[in-house]
Amino acid sequence: MQQSPRPQRLAAELIGTAGLLAVVVGSGIMGEGLAGGNTAIALLANALATGAILVVLITAFGPLSGAHFNPAVTLAFLLRREISPRDALSYVIAQVLGGIAGTLAAHAMFELPLLQIAETARNGSAQWLSEVVATFGLVGTILATLRYRPEAVAYMVGLFITAGYWFTASTSFANPAVTIARTFTDTFSGIARADAPAFIIAQLLGAVVATMVLGWLLPAATESERRPAQASD
Amino acid sequence: MQQSPRPQRLAAELIGTAGLLAVVVGSGIMGEGLAGGNTAIALLANALATGAILVVLITAFGPLSGAHFNPAVTLAFLLRREISPRDALSYVIAQVLGGIAGTLAAHAMFELPLLQIAETARNGSAQWLSEVVATFGLVGTILATLRYRPEAVAYMVGLFITAGYWFTASTSFANPAVTIARTFTDTFSGIARADAPAFIIAQLLGAVVATMVLGWLLPAATESERRPAQASD
Amino acid sequence: MQQSPRPQRLAAELIGTAGLLAVVVGSGIMGEGLAGGNTAIALLANALATGAILVVLITAFGPLSGAHFNPAVTLAFLLRREISPRDALSYVIAQVLGGIAGTLAAHAMFELPLLQIAETARNGSAQWLSEVVATFGLVGTILATLRYRPEAVAYMVGLFITAGYWFTASTSFANPAVTIARTFTDTFSGIARADAPAFIIAQLLGAVVATMVLGWLLPAATESERRPAQASD
Amino acid sequence: MQQSPRPQRLAAELIGTAGLLAVVVGSGIMGEGLAGGNTAIALLANALATGAILVVLITAFGPLSGAHFNPAVTLAFLLRREISPRDALSYVIAQVLGGIAGTLAAHAMFELPLLQIAETARNGSAQWLSEVVATFGLVGTILATLRYRPEAVAYMVGLFITAGYWFTASTSFANPAVTIARTFTDTFSGIARADAPAFIIAQLLGAVVATMVLGWLLPAATESERRPAQASD
Repeated sequence: MQQSPRPQRLAAELIGTAGLLAVVVGSGIMGEGLAGGNTAIALLANALATGAILVVLITAFGPLSGAHFNPAVTLAFLLRREISPRDALSYVIAQVLGGIAGTLAAHAMFELPLLQIAETARNGSAQWLSEVVATFGLVGTILATLRYRPEAVAYMVGLFITAGYWFTASTSFANPAVTIARTFTDTFSGIARADAPAFIIAQLLGAVVATMVLGWLLPAATESERRPAQASD
Repeated sequence: MQQSPRPQRLAAELIGTAGLLAVVVGSGIMGEGLAGGNTAIALLANALATGAILVVLITAFGPLSGAHFNPAVTLAFLLRREISPRDALSYVIAQVLGGIAGTLAAHAMFELPLLQIAETARNGSAQWLSEVVATFGLVGTILATLRYRPEAVAYMVGLFITAGYWFTASTSFANPAVTIARTFTDTFSGIARADAPAFIIAQLLGAVVATMVLGWLLPAATESERRPAQASD
Repeated sequence: MQQSPRPQRLAAELIGTAGLLAVVVGSGIMGEGLAGGNTAIALLANALATGAILVVLITAFGPLSGAHFNPAVTLAFLLRREISPRDALSYVIAQVLGGIAGTLAAHAMFELPLLQIAETARNGSAQWLSEVVATFGLVGTILATLRYRPEAVAYMVGLFITAGYWFTASTSFANPAVTIARTFTDTFSGIARADAPAFIIAQLLGAVVATMVLGWLLPAATESERRPAQASD
Repeated sequence: MQQSPRPQRLAAELIGTAGLLAVVVGSGIMGEGLAGGNTAIALLANALATGAILVVLITAFGPLSGAHFNPAVTLAFLLRREISPRDALSYVIAQVLGGIAGTLAAHAMFELPLLQIAETARNGSAQWLSEVVATFGLVGTILATLRYRPEAVAYMVGLFITAGYWFTASTSFANPAVTIARTFTDTFSGIARADAPAFIIAQLLGAVVATMVLGWLLPAATESERRPAQASD
């Protein structure tokens, strides 16, 4: 498959991450608003909507940009030398800007103040461990699935994050761009700005460990299996 | 694949849109009736049932008519010159008639008065923005998926709308035929007649913007990739 | 694909229908028992479990017997002359016996009296119309999907029935063997014996209409497309 | 496909079973914590998260180790002589150790005491019958799907267990490694140590019966269909 031109690839990362955040934040607002105080029902809606949109966005944009939407994923591909440092940097910028734009879009759709500062505290070693585990799992899932079943990556990411909402104490942010964007919303999915850096460090740590473990676990691709530009950059 | 004859194609659009509305309206009635006042649970049932039936209907009827079931989708294919104006017009008529028929079928199945006029107000700029975003996302999803993974379109539409119920303030009608049909039911999924035109304008605007953005984002199909009559008309 | 021998095919129909009923009845008991009076949550569990097991059973047993598990489906294939009358009759007997066995298995797993007589009244023209619509939709889904995407039939049936629980007033039995089996349980999913015949007539009517409509809607299979014994008998 | 080396295969079994238990135990803790006393909602979250992660883990690790994650599954392949006794034993050890590690990881993520002893009584003939049925269904699903649709096994296992949570009185442990690991948590998904042996015997019995029944039901693979190392080892 011919690689897309750079502007299109960056637009795909920006629009895709915006779509992801619009759903994470928007479905959190809607879920909490309707659930009548039962947080489990709100989280169920949040988890199903987020998982569903991840499948859609990665299927739609994967052939264009690789559909990272996540600096931790871009870092993994950088460590594997499947994306250039320059491309990786531009991807991360597009992801962060897209994430913030998506958060504002959710606020606009629900008639809330566009600019908000999150107050929700999310910290402590259990939360950080959760983010290491979540990002390890997410990156490991992507690398293992890409190796043998690349056409299934979109479904696996959506399913992993749906489970992640429930099996980690932090609800599996697992994504630095998502973390930054969620500091801009004081709704169900927000995270206080002061708590973001530790989350991001935990996420990058999880991505690095996953890249190392999967590098050992998976056999090297043979020459005929190499897919230039497929689902990475 | 040989194109189906016109009567069969129009019947597919009519029956398919009827099935879609029977589920949207019917599952809204059932969900609200059983949820004991917890609207989140009713919306969860409504969203899951609608997403599921979209996958089914598009898979079943896609090879016959393209399975638009939606004037906004037909408009996108018209703008891309993948359907003739005459066919597009007949599709839209079939969709609107089918949608109304499906709403009446839902009423009949739940022993409600067949003819109803919706009272539910759904208006304001946040609602309209929601419909622009929802239809932009729906049409963008269809165009991007058709380009590289046409066999996955049915799943992506179902997943997008399941998410859309939760991440937009309007619950993602994203479909003028659905909007018109829902003015004929004064149940969970209804919309007051006076509010329909603004919804429809927002939907068509979202479809036009999506067609333009995706036209820039996606590379042109090469000659060998062109699929005559596949999933459009 | 070589057709399986008759004993294996009948065993597949019997075990598969037993599995279906064990899930329909069992998940109804569990859902109602845990939902604390919120019937929508019980029905959500019932619908998700039933849809999931249908995908599993049809995928597992489809290559053996066609995975009908449903006399209305067998009738449709008989009308299309894709199964012999003798095979059809033996299929129906296996389905009915299997369905009853599955109901008893559910009772045994939940420590309930094995033999029960359902008391739940389910009647009236709205219920019957619901069963016509549900079976029309189910059989139509199967015939249309088999024509162009046979490998997707299992998923479509599971998704259709998940939606059917919500969009029809009768919760979409859509299956005479299921209806008979459900007269043997006085739990969440039961149906009074006196109400079963009208349900079954409605179901067979829906199947006949679907076979006729789809016979007109779908183009005839070309010679090279014919799949002997695939997913029918 | 070349078989992976033994250390990688055992690591895949260990990490995969750890991931499975982290989700079973973690989503149980989260679900019960948020559901406000409505056990059905907690079980819904538990079932969806477990089903989702099974699809992910089997897709990711299937090509490496076969993705058994379950001594009952390994037993079935041993009976079919598709794994050597020595490999089977090492698989089971990796599964049990992985399962316990995953349980501890869930405790750590939720700031609970790492070492716990389950108190939840789960016994009686109805529970045991449930485990026979659940494991019979799980192993039968795997063997039948592997025979004709090996690429779908991951999805079928996830869907079967999602249904299993609801249609069996025991919520379908169906896995001796999972059973042992769940004796180490006194949370939603725990099982008292004294009750584990009967569960495990029931599970192994279900696996043996399924292997026998499917051995009769499925035609023998032809020479050209044999897939060395595919999905077992």
